[in-house]
Amino acid sequence: MARCAWRRDRHMTLTNTRTVRIEWGDCDPAGIIFYPRYFEIFDASTAALFERALGMTKFKFLAAYKFAGFPVLHTHARFLKPTRFGDDVTIETGIVFGTSSFEIKHRLSLNGEVAAEGEEKRVWVVRDASGAMKSQAIPADVIARFQV
Amino acid sequence: MARCAWRRDRHMTLTNTRTVRIEWGDCDPAGIIFYPRYFEIFDASTAALFERALGMTKFKFLAAYKFAGFPVLHTHARFLKPTRFGDDVTIETGIVFGTSSFEIKHRLSLNGEVAAEGEEKRVWVVRDASGAMKSQAIPADVIARFQV
Amino acid sequence: MARCAWRRDRHMTLTNTRTVRIEWGDCDPAGIIFYPRYFEIFDASTAALFERALGMTKFKFLAAYKFAGFPVLHTHARFLKPTRFGDDVTIETGIVFGTSSFEIKHRLSLNGEVAAEGEEKRVWVVRDASGAMKSQAIPADVIARFQV
Amino acid sequence: MARCAWRRDRHMTLTNTRTVRIEWGDCDPAGIIFYPRYFEIFDASTAALFERALGMTKFKFLAAYKFAGFPVLHTHARFLKPTRFGDDVTIETGIVFGTSSFEIKHRLSLNGEVAAEGEEKRVWVVRDASGAMKSQAIPADVIARFQV
Repeated sequence: MARCAWRRDRHMTLTNTRTVRIEWGDCDPAGIIFYPRYFEIFDASTAALFERALGMTKFKFLAAYKFAGFPVLHTHARFLKPTRFGDDVTIETGIVFGTSSFEIKHRLSLNGEVAAEGEEKRVWVVRDASGAMKSQAIPADVIARFQV
Repeated sequence: MARCAWRRDRHMTLTNTRTVRIEWGDCDPAGIIFYPRYFEIFDASTAALFERALGMTKFKFLAAYKFAGFPVLHTHARFLKPTRFGDDVTIETGIVFGTSSFEIKHRLSLNGEVAAEGEEKRVWVVRDASGAMKSQAIPADVIARFQV
Repeated sequence: MARCAWRRDRHMTLTNTRTVRIEWGDCDPAGIIFYPRYFEIFDASTAALFERALGMTKFKFLAAYKFAGFPVLHTHARFLKPTRFGDDVTIETGIVFGTSSFEIKHRLSLNGEVAAEGEEKRVWVVRDASGAMKSQAIPADVIARFQV
Repeated sequence: MARCAWRRDRHMTLTNTRTVRIEWGDCDPAGIIFYPRYFEIFDASTAALFERALGMTKFKFLAAYKFAGFPVLHTHARFLKPTRFGDDVTIETGIVFGTSSFEIKHRLSLNGEVAAEGEEKRVWVVRDASGAMKSQAIPADVIARFQV
């Protein structure tokens, strides 16, 4: 993941860093994390980045900005080194905005070494009158809050 | 779990039996099922019993009977023998109705031997005008469909 | 849960308190936590209590004390108030030791009000020569580290 | 996913198709599947393909072929249409073997329409004397069992 290039190609935006403990119940019989758990960590890390930028939890920002969420269109992840229960991993999360979609990159490290990386493309959705989800342009003031 | 007494003390009601494969990702570093997964199996087994009785999936019966679900008030489970990935377990689920609540018993077996048992008390809830969940009497025609 | 009585009936032992964020992915279509997630939280809280008492992570204390874990024999939980994504809940965990088993109580609170309670009975297990798990007396120096 | 090309570029190998019910507890507050659950489904689908080819469960084939598993190196998934609780989805899984790694493709459909696709690169690993996992050539008789 060419992180420098990623950062250079747009205006600077907020990143967020959080630490997560890998738990016994996150691990499989090989004693290492069961890889779908990384996507749970990534999903919570995306929410945490928005919480940092918008100054409120996802529960509140969904209501404040009257939208239904930001489902994932596609995702790619690489698992470089195994992690296991008892490890405290650090996830650094960055964003690049499009019009109604955005890209997220997560870098998950253990003791300063990258253990996993994930990229997601997500779309900003609202409910139409029928209750179906449809994409919508991301509000300008949401994007503005990520500028640093 | 005094299953005979349980069955004797009310009119006969439907039971449902389903089989579930325990997967690699359900198991922990000890190589056996991580016990919160049993509650996921039990929750799906309760939905399956209602699906059998009502003749439609939970997605449809929530709409058809205009309710918000049946959250668990309390639950008790015993884990008698470990199960592990590759095991096909059988879950037999029975019900006793109260007015706005009901009790569920699950018996999970492997090769004919009981491996886990769970009991749940759940409440039938609807949304009030504010969106909060409140209990409501279970419709008589729902209960009628469980009589055999 | 008669917490005062619980505390009174034995020598004082360590408790541990931790805070957990309920995430979007922990919640179900009703918008509240899917109750099996509480057991994941409880399991990690039990590990955290041992980590506090023994001064090392579960990964390390399993090796240090040469045992295979402490599987749950039975558990009972009550769900008093729903929690939802964005909530930061506090879990206070206490223990009472038997010979080869122990009992754990968890009290999970939101904004100072109890939202859920769980009790577990767990057994200390080692692997025998065949690889099967069997119970064993809890080492006296483990128990000693919980005395306050 | 250029599925025809995928199929054409190697000798024909086994595929496996299974059906999975999306459960209430797999879905998030938007009422649709929480996307990490797709990776749990994909992981079980990979195991099911091996089970079909080798004629035994993962628990047994890990022992029979004396290996520690096939952890994922990287994965890519696309989510085309949401699925929700009550949906019975079909997953078709195919494989292309390398020397010590293999690629898997999953196509997940609902009512005959593709809802999600996933690709994984996995590596065949054994434990070395220190207990660490290292890659090893996939046994020829394993690969042979996938030829049709």
